[in-house]
Amino acid sequence: MTRRTDQLKLGAFLANSGHHVAAWRHPRAQADASLDFDYFKQVAQTAERGRFDALFVADVVALWGHHLDALSRTARGEHFEPLTLMAALAAVTSRIGLIATATTSYNEPYHIARKFASLDYLSKGRAAWNLVTSVVSDEAWNFGREAHIDHAERYRRAEEFHDVVKGLWDSWEDDAFLRDKDSGQYFDPAKLHVLNHQGEYFSVRGPLNVARPPQGHPVLVQAGASDAGKALAARVAEVIFAMAETIPAAQAFYNDVKQRATALGRDPDGIKILPGITPFIGRTREEARELFEEFQSLVDPVLGLRLLADTLGEDIDLSAHDLDGPLPETPVGQRGSRRDKVLELARNEGLTIRQLYLRLAGGNPVIGTAEDIADTFDAWFQARACDGFNVFFPYLPGGIEVFVDEVVPLLQERGLLRREYEGATLRENLGLVRPANRFAGSAA
Amino acid sequence: MTRRTDQLKLGAFLANSGHHVAAWRHPRAQADASLDFDYFKQVAQTAERGRFDALFVADVVALWGHHLDALSRTARGEHFEPLTLMAALAAVTSRIGLIATATTSYNEPYHIARKFASLDYLSKGRAAWNLVTSVVSDEAWNFGREAHIDHAERYRRAEEFHDVVKGLWDSWEDDAFLRDKDSGQYFDPAKLHVLNHQGEYFSVRGPLNVARPPQGHPVLVQAGASDAGKALAARVAEVIFAMAETIPAAQAFYNDVKQRATALGRDPDGIKILPGITPFIGRTREEARELFEEFQSLVDPVLGLRLLADTLGEDIDLSAHDLDGPLPETPVGQRGSRRDKVLELARNEGLTIRQLYLRLAGGNPVIGTAEDIADTFDAWFQARACDGFNVFFPYLPGGIEVFVDEVVPLLQERGLLRREYEGATLRENLGLVRPANRFAGSAA
Ligand SMILES: Cc1cc2nc3c(=O)[nH]c(=O)nc-3n(C[C@H](O)[C@H](O)[C@H](O)COP(=O)(O)O)c2cc1C
Ligand SMILES: Cc1cc2nc3c(=O)[nH]c(=O)nc-3n(C[C@H](O)[C@H](O)[C@H](O)COP(=O)(O)O)c2cc1C
Repeated sequence: MTRRTDQLKLGAFLANSGHHVAAWRHPRAQADASLDFDYFKQVAQTAERGRFDALFVADVVALWGHHLDALSRTARGEHFEPLTLMAALAAVTSRIGLIATATTSYNEPYHIARKFASLDYLSKGRAAWNLVTSVVSDEAWNFGREAHIDHAERYRRAEEFHDVVKGLWDSWEDDAFLRDKDSGQYFDPAKLHVLNHQGEYFSVRGPLNVARPPQGHPVLVQAGASDAGKALAARVAEVIFAMAETIPAAQAFYNDVKQRATALGRDPDGIKILPGITPFIGRTREEARELFEEFQSLVDPVLGLRLLADTLGEDIDLSAHDLDGPLPETPVGQRGSRRDKVLELARNEGLTIRQLYLRLAGGNPVIGTAEDIADTFDAWFQARACDGFNVFFPYLPGGIEVFVDEVVPLLQERGLLRREYEGATLRENLGLVRPANRFAGSAA
Repeated sequence: MTRRTDQLKLGAFLANSGHHVAAWRHPRAQADASLDFDYFKQVAQTAERGRFDALFVADVVALWGHHLDALSRTARGEHFEPLTLMAALAAVTSRIGLIATATTSYNEPYHIARKFASLDYLSKGRAAWNLVTSVVSDEAWNFGREAHIDHAERYRRAEEFHDVVKGLWDSWEDDAFLRDKDSGQYFDPAKLHVLNHQGEYFSVRGPLNVARPPQGHPVLVQAGASDAGKALAARVAEVIFAMAETIPAAQAFYNDVKQRATALGRDPDGIKILPGITPFIGRTREEARELFEEFQSLVDPVLGLRLLADTLGEDIDLSAHDLDGPLPETPVGQRGSRRDKVLELARNEGLTIRQLYLRLAGGNPVIGTAEDIADTFDAWFQARACDGFNVFFPYLPGGIEVFVDEVVPLLQERGLLRREYEGATLRENLGLVRPANRFAGSAA
């Protein structure tokens, strides 16, 4: 197989203290990072030095879980709101993209269209929206609802929400603003378009009170895993965050989505698929393995058992069992595929309860030297299992420094990663086309 | 009367190209400032150099008016969204406060509580919320409503909205986060409080997923002029933007609000009242007057007639009348006090149509030398007509440079303005108490 001529696209995941669930306890992690802007600034500037395409920040519009004994052992109780954080980071970076998460389930499209358009101007064309439909059901309670909107309806709402936002971004043609001091004409009313949307979930008149964003539309990012999620992604996503632990699994997802997009008439190269990956880097493989085990040893059993309960369900009571013994006998095939997969994993590998929750806590690690990490990135990329990665750093801010100092130069030597940014906007750096205005040329 | 021993509090109003409605056309104004972050950064840093307490940005969640022939002659069609703009400015300033406007009529309290808490952390304690109930009725159409929420209901909703936001800011006690690497305890669950609000307009469970803000609560700013508006201000505002054209009118408002607050058990010094004022500065009085007239001459008649129609109502057709002749005979006492005031002004002073709309366009100017401006500030302040000013700059960015270079040193020499910021937070600089947590010490 000939080597690909395009290059890796890299996202840097911004996490409080690091991505590992026990990161904040590690000696190399900053424990009080969560609401410290200087920390985020340092991580962002390091990512830009490493020529990452974009920073990415996740979001939940609620406290992340109500099992306080477990939650209180993580750094997830407090975090910045993504759009304000990214706006601040826009002011202290110049080339890196800014991907902020916002849910379509508990927001209004006019606000979202406007805030991302505003971010696109603040950053001179570096804004991206990670459109999610909310995994955490507690969000409902903060917005006047007694229960979470169900999955199918969340995606129907997301489809309409998305279309309204894009319509609002096209309120003004690119050349609507004249600002002619002599004639006194600031804009040309013929180049303003009123959306007048009336749909199942939203009525939004428009127009937006922000000119058309520098990128036309901020870049659209999505991470749905269900059928409805992949259908939305195939139609509208330009970047997709995927979760896959092996090359074949990643290839299956990659081909599925790209074929769906092609069937809808889209250019498959117009979608960049980035699986999540967590590199644990050592000067030797042993050192890397030790680093990984250090993090694993910091997972408090209260937290570990909560991870298991979240996956297996509350009906399996593990409290009376020895953590270093086996799981109690549990029938398979009853409550969803993720539970079954984990039960089978435990049985097939003969894992203890502790070993099992550590497997869940460990995520999708690659453990090795900088050379090993570069090899892994290269192998996945050449196998067309991905177009790049969404990189999770086990601890921060040190974890991204090591990655940029040691892995990035290897990727650059192999021609897998840019040495300089190609363009000024995120779209240019990702190699994505700037969309045309749907109204251009038509009457108001 | 002895001179006051406190000092002026100053807000700097951030406007596209400047505050005068025709500002963008003036040779000294930057016409394409509206979505140019570098422009806002320059204005913000100049205001900080001038030791202003805070930057202030207004907001409308819709296009500001649908009379496109008039609107298209102003710079009001496009503007940054306030919270993203202020977050970006937080990263390039260090002491000045950041007052962002957000309406309670078309927002959710959880989002607003969270974004301002986030801004307070990003700025290390410099956030303030200008709570408005929306003057522009078109906003309703962007949020699924056929008509604007009526005035009384807007204020009832605002009262409840405000209380929910403050409750959410108190979700965590100030010392809830331990981040103890050894024990593995990140926060103390006993110091987390769930709001469980159930009210007329909102059900919000909470808690907030942001720790208690550095200021306890971001500073609360308000500008209501009606009875309901003043009642809300008296109960909750810490800064009030007022509009008054004379010292006696300003004194009446000042005394009214401070007495209302005192009656509610508040310390009247805990409310800073800042009328808006627009200084036109020249090296001589003649030069200042010429500068003012230059701006007035740039008001296009289409725009001028729209300002008149917005004030007098659509029923007075001026299109067939000579702009340099008198208003047609119009009965007084029929459609609201603002209309009557303007009709009486025209009659009493014998103004032509053009002179009348220019009077509306001119706003509340002070025209003179830097010394004159300082005298005016001093006189209002000593007369207890205000606690400072919300300064509107006729053109930008030059208008604030002149003010900071020429007026600020005079105010400092007279002891009316700080030479250095007193503290690190907006609260400290305004001399406002940091509020206690309502839940502190109580059970969850
Ligand atoms: C890398 C990554 C980041 C995600 N970030 C968020 C997030 O910030 N907020 C959220 O509610 N969901 C987030 N999700 C969840 C997805 O949006 C999606 O809901 C989930 O993968 C389940 O897919 P489904 O809803 O199509 O079943 C993320 C998923 C991935 C893989
Ligand atoms: C300096 C100043 C700034 C204001 N900014 C806004 C604003 O940004 N958005 C808004 O909807 N209303 C704004 N207002 C309007 C007030 O919030 C208020 O609605 C108006 O003064 C009428 O008062 P009332 O609603 O109590 O009748 C502002 C008023 C003043 C004096």
